[in-house]
Amino acid sequence: MRAVRFHGRGDIRLDEVEEPVCGNGQVKIRPAFVGICGSDIHEYLAGPTLVPVTPHPLTGDKLPTTLGHEFSGTVEEVGPGVTGFKVGDQVIVKPDVFDSTCSNCSMGRFTSCEKLGFIGFSSQAGGLSDHIVVDSKHAILLPDSIPLDIGALVEPLAVAWHAVSRSPLQANDTVLVVGAGPIGLAIIQVLKAKGITLIIAVEVSERRREFALALGATEVLNPVDADAVTQVRALTGNVGAAISFECSGVQAGLDIAIAGLRVRGTSVIVSLWEHKPIIDIFGVVFQEKHVIGAVIYDDGDFEAVIDAIASGSIQPRPMITSKIRMEDVDERGFKALIGQRDKHVKILVDISA
Amino acid sequence: MRAVRFHGRGDIRLDEVEEPVCGNGQVKIRPAFVGICGSDIHEYLAGPTLVPVTPHPLTGDKLPTTLGHEFSGTVEEVGPGVTGFKVGDQVIVKPDVFDSTCSNCSMGRFTSCEKLGFIGFSSQAGGLSDHIVVDSKHAILLPDSIPLDIGALVEPLAVAWHAVSRSPLQANDTVLVVGAGPIGLAIIQVLKAKGITLIIAVEVSERRREFALALGATEVLNPVDADAVTQVRALTGNVGAAISFECSGVQAGLDIAIAGLRVRGTSVIVSLWEHKPIIDIFGVVFQEKHVIGAVIYDDGDFEAVIDAIASGSIQPRPMITSKIRMEDVDERGFKALIGQRDKHVKILVDISA
Repeated sequence: MRAVRFHGRGDIRLDEVEEPVCGNGQVKIRPAFVGICGSDIHEYLAGPTLVPVTPHPLTGDKLPTTLGHEFSGTVEEVGPGVTGFKVGDQVIVKPDVFDSTCSNCSMGRFTSCEKLGFIGFSSQAGGLSDHIVVDSKHAILLPDSIPLDIGALVEPLAVAWHAVSRSPLQANDTVLVVGAGPIGLAIIQVLKAKGITLIIAVEVSERRREFALALGATEVLNPVDADAVTQVRALTGNVGAAISFECSGVQAGLDIAIAGLRVRGTSVIVSLWEHKPIIDIFGVVFQEKHVIGAVIYDDGDFEAVIDAIASGSIQPRPMITSKIRMEDVDERGFKALIGQRDKHVKILVDISA
Repeated sequence: MRAVRFHGRGDIRLDEVEEPVCGNGQVKIRPAFVGICGSDIHEYLAGPTLVPVTPHPLTGDKLPTTLGHEFSGTVEEVGPGVTGFKVGDQVIVKPDVFDSTCSNCSMGRFTSCEKLGFIGFSSQAGGLSDHIVVDSKHAILLPDSIPLDIGALVEPLAVAWHAVSRSPLQANDTVLVVGAGPIGLAIIQVLKAKGITLIIAVEVSERRREFALALGATEVLNPVDADAVTQVRALTGNVGAAISFECSGVQAGLDIAIAGLRVRGTSVIVSLWEHKPIIDIFGVVFQEKHVIGAVIYDDGDFEAVIDAIASGSIQPRPMITSKIRMEDVDERGFKALIGQRDKHVKILVDISA
């Protein structure tokens, strides 16, 4: 079967590999749509970091591994001992792999597992393939009312749902979202679904500001045109936002996310960083601000997103800016996201195309 | 009357000034003991920063102003319209001055008032004088059972009480205190008073580690001898501390305060900084840590500290390492704290001596 595998920095290949066998407690899935994530791009440009170069402590696999961790598909085989799934079911996959025994897992913080791995990075199992076998605990039923392409957006939306859940968001809060890439846009949708009525997006790209408005931002600011913090204060009764989400991963974004907060406001850092930034600790101390981290998701976040999509409170279709074939994943997928970053939010690979 | 006034960087003088008059709604106090604070030293070495060089928006005063904001005293006159005080009462002074109208005050965050000032920095009224007149709202009764020298420690202990109150401290939490200067030592005492049984202090000075142990730390670590984070993990079942208090104000301290936390732990930053530090944002994001600021105190913190001292759950006398006369405040006060930093915790000026 075909699989898109990561062989090294800038080197992904459509390989022919052995089809996996569905064992006890497992399900075999035919992937339908696979999103290309910012972390895939990060791995492509600066990896291997998530892809193991020595055997991963949980999967035993190492580079080259199969990519694809944001995906939907259809169950094509149900292994012995598995209940709750049948052939033909639509599913999505919760990709995090943990071992339950490390000190973080022992506190219930599985997503900070010291051995954390991911389907789509850490093993031969990845969504960018004709077939994938996963332990059934990774599979989550997707209602037939939700199209499979939308299903591929559940994973990034779950990251956003989790980040919003980590914040102390209250009904009438004013919220600032810094950076309107896929995660920033996903957070905007979750905030809208939760009834937030003042969502200010700060983004340098005009096209992404348009996406932000289309997906639920009530105000968009270009920090190049005018001082974003001054504008945020003006929009919030001169106090600053109650909550900010830092989704840019750059120093200027972090500065706005913290300076744009009101006294005792909370900035949730969702972004991945290439360098350690400087923090305005004076603002944190004197204004008693909170800076907190959010990573991937908790139990229940996938289900919450599925419910929100099913009920129509999240309508993420505008996020899909392109669908491509597996053989085009390098040129029209990774390279398009790198070279034409402004044009795209989410590129989906249609495995059947 | 005599007053110790700040005339500029490194320039404090024992001046002869006019005795203040007690007006409506005010009390006149004879200061007894006045602590020299780290912020006084900071002003001495790097100021004027807190001392206004143009008329302060609330007090109307400017440099030279009278120093002394940690002090106890005795009421010597009660102005018209004041109830709750009589001549001879022991009192302490809550020194923050705010105007109630700024956007932060409108949210109830008076201590982040945009015009915030302090008795002892922003006006002619300061504790280092023979007499001081303050609006009666600044005066808090000190029970006769608490000696006046101990009363002068209530203000720094209130800063510590507030910092601990800002944290999500739970009964069985493991706590890390980075930096055992006066505020770190005050926090250690508050933690002990709250029943915390694992209090790890990290401090480079041997003498200060001894103070930390005497005042309630259960473990002391010298970060120069061995990696503090490794030691903290070893002391906390290999998970890290639930809460840390950053009281060092230096990069290495902040690094330990954050890296020494367990997953989803909270670091409360209480320190004042000369430069903006770098933050290990990878740790914050992937371990979902919380970094929060704490500044001065909230309503009720002074009263809580007085109750804790009255009940014996805080016994801060070892903090007092020296008592000096007003005329010696420069040489044996400020210069001693700068040059013999390791020897001292709190130097009190005895106004009557």
